[in-house]
Amino acid sequence: MTKNRLEAFSDGVIAIAITLLVIELRPPELHDGELLARQLWRQWPSYAAYLVSFLTIGVVWLNHHRVFTQVRRVDGPLLLLNLNLLLWTALVPFPTAVVADYLGGGGEPARTAVALYGVVFLLLGLSFGALFAWVTRDDRLLGQLPPAAVVRAARLRFMSGSAVYLVAIGLAFVSPPLALALHGATALYYTFDQASVAPTVSEG
Amino acid sequence: MTKNRLEAFSDGVIAIAITLLVIELRPPELHDGELLARQLWRQWPSYAAYLVSFLTIGVVWLNHHRVFTQVRRVDGPLLLLNLNLLLWTALVPFPTAVVADYLGGGGEPARTAVALYGVVFLLLGLSFGALFAWVTRDDRLLGQLPPAAVVRAARLRFMSGSAVYLVAIGLAFVSPPLALALHGATALYYTFDQASVAPTVSEG
Amino acid sequence: MTKNRLEAFSDGVIAIAITLLVIELRPPELHDGELLARQLWRQWPSYAAYLVSFLTIGVVWLNHHRVFTQVRRVDGPLLLLNLNLLLWTALVPFPTAVVADYLGGGGEPARTAVALYGVVFLLLGLSFGALFAWVTRDDRLLGQLPPAAVVRAARLRFMSGSAVYLVAIGLAFVSPPLALALHGATALYYTFDQASVAPTVSEG
Amino acid sequence: MTKNRLEAFSDGVIAIAITLLVIELRPPELHDGELLARQLWRQWPSYAAYLVSFLTIGVVWLNHHRVFTQVRRVDGPLLLLNLNLLLWTALVPFPTAVVADYLGGGGEPARTAVALYGVVFLLLGLSFGALFAWVTRDDRLLGQLPPAAVVRAARLRFMSGSAVYLVAIGLAFVSPPLALALHGATALYYTFDQASVAPTVSEG
Repeated sequence: MTKNRLEAFSDGVIAIAITLLVIELRPPELHDGELLARQLWRQWPSYAAYLVSFLTIGVVWLNHHRVFTQVRRVDGPLLLLNLNLLLWTALVPFPTAVVADYLGGGGEPARTAVALYGVVFLLLGLSFGALFAWVTRDDRLLGQLPPAAVVRAARLRFMSGSAVYLVAIGLAFVSPPLALALHGATALYYTFDQASVAPTVSEG
Repeated sequence: MTKNRLEAFSDGVIAIAITLLVIELRPPELHDGELLARQLWRQWPSYAAYLVSFLTIGVVWLNHHRVFTQVRRVDGPLLLLNLNLLLWTALVPFPTAVVADYLGGGGEPARTAVALYGVVFLLLGLSFGALFAWVTRDDRLLGQLPPAAVVRAARLRFMSGSAVYLVAIGLAFVSPPLALALHGATALYYTFDQASVAPTVSEG
Repeated sequence: MTKNRLEAFSDGVIAIAITLLVIELRPPELHDGELLARQLWRQWPSYAAYLVSFLTIGVVWLNHHRVFTQVRRVDGPLLLLNLNLLLWTALVPFPTAVVADYLGGGGEPARTAVALYGVVFLLLGLSFGALFAWVTRDDRLLGQLPPAAVVRAARLRFMSGSAVYLVAIGLAFVSPPLALALHGATALYYTFDQASVAPTVSEG
Repeated sequence: MTKNRLEAFSDGVIAIAITLLVIELRPPELHDGELLARQLWRQWPSYAAYLVSFLTIGVVWLNHHRVFTQVRRVDGPLLLLNLNLLLWTALVPFPTAVVADYLGGGGEPARTAVALYGVVFLLLGLSFGALFAWVTRDDRLLGQLPPAAVVRAARLRFMSGSAVYLVAIGLAFVSPPLALALHGATALYYTFDQASVAPTVSEG
């Protein structure tokens, strides 16, 4: 039961966070004789930020699903680690809005906006890593743990995203758009399964 | 399991997107002695856009349901095709807000707004078509595939919406209100089942 | 399956609509030396509208639940009647915001705002009545229909809310606050079960 | 069935309320040559309020879960007590926004904002206490009630939060930031289980 309700609640929060991204996309205001088409075009940073954040939250959902398919038992720390993961996931619309507002103008605001974006994603990545480390700590939660080398390799793949986010934070001070693109590429990498170590639990 | 959680997550995103449409409906501002009744009346493009978008997202849900009732197995590409479908569905409140703001004033903004609306719906339709094509590619996902002619006909019915959206984009440059009405009519067409090709899976 | 997913989707839309009501409650703006406490107090129409709308949507959920506990089979028209009910339920935050903005100032705006509120609730009530009438039309959806007199009485109780909403619309032109209070009283009436006619379906 | 749908609806409302907190976090506006980094930093009351409210709603979810794991039967009053609990939970984003806007400036607005925050949390705590008292009133809902002393102790632990909120309201008039910190500490206390009195119901 606990696992089902934890998954349902997590799915709810993730689904709402991913859908709330759209409220940062606002109709542009038009002044004397401006073309709507042109003003819509000028909002490209909003669209780019929407796309990258949507992909990333989507990938959080995919991997949440992959991790919990293997989990057989939920304990107290896992509940809190999961709540911590949701806290950072639900926060994503905020840095997304900051990037949407300030990426286009360049300068310090663009660099700071994308660096903030990277910091939130780094903390999201570390939170997910902590959850994964707890789940694979021993066989109490998974039922059956694979050889230590397999677990280590999976943890490494799972954590490598955080290292990339660290790079993206640095890159934000050189080229904010490139740093945003790196976030997008990281999300695409995680659409492939990096989390499976144990047999999945059939609940059919 | 995978299928249940994919359906639950999709239902969540679709339910949130359809309900978020309402936050584009704002109380009108009143200046010196204006009647609220008159200003509410003037917001008719908001109500029209709300209605058409609500119908369309509602129909996406109905058809998502119809397609996945037939699916027996979920694979990796289907997860990504579904995420892509949700991306465009969750985006709908944005063009809806643009139409609400600019349809009433006419001119270039009205034409551009409804054309943008059509483009998002076209991409939504194509995404759904790609998902449907993948599901009906062979019998691995459906368990049992009907004769090729039945599949072809169902795909054609399922895809025809995208052709109509293409027409609606063109029509937006002639008569934006008519183009919006065409979107509404398309949604009504899809309330009827165009997606069933295989026996449904009982999960009771 | 269909029934489960219809209930889950409806629960989602209703839960989102009821929770979105809060975004109409905004922190007041303060000008030179105004007290926050006083400005918060002045927003009482927002709180009243939030409370009545929350109660009403909560009651829609309770009754949706009571009706569908009795339903054994879902058909096409029921899907559409349910979508229609959700359309008006999801719309509630809009007239709520209009009442919150214009009830306090009195005059034509207050009367129009509460009348609009009543119109949306009337259409919501009629939509629910239509759904209930369809469900109790014969025994195909309920499995087993009680005597005609029982059904008639239940329909009458279920529909009487719409008559009250009609009264509330008229009352809005005399005393907008009283009309809002009548809406609240109607919601309280419907917390008691007015919908049960058939044995409930155990799904445990 | 009733219990499952009540849990699903409650999870939905709680998940939406917790995720809606983010829309109070807005990108700061920049004037002539201000640094984005500095303006983001200045918004610390928003981040503090987000964190405390997220923790508190998260803890409401954990405890809702702990209480309903023990419940075997849902009756009418429990439905209403649960709706009342959801009303206050869904309201949390409002005082959170007020704190975010007025904590940083100090003075009467800061004190009033945090006192309002405390009042809403107090009413939330009392609502949860009333629900818990009803559930543990006799053995009809839990199936099997533990000795009276165990129930009394659990009620006391469960209710003690409301006493702390009362203290926090008073503290708001002395030091608003300290009062907010006390709210955060209370949430952390409730991450530990204070609600278990009866054997849980397996639903697997």
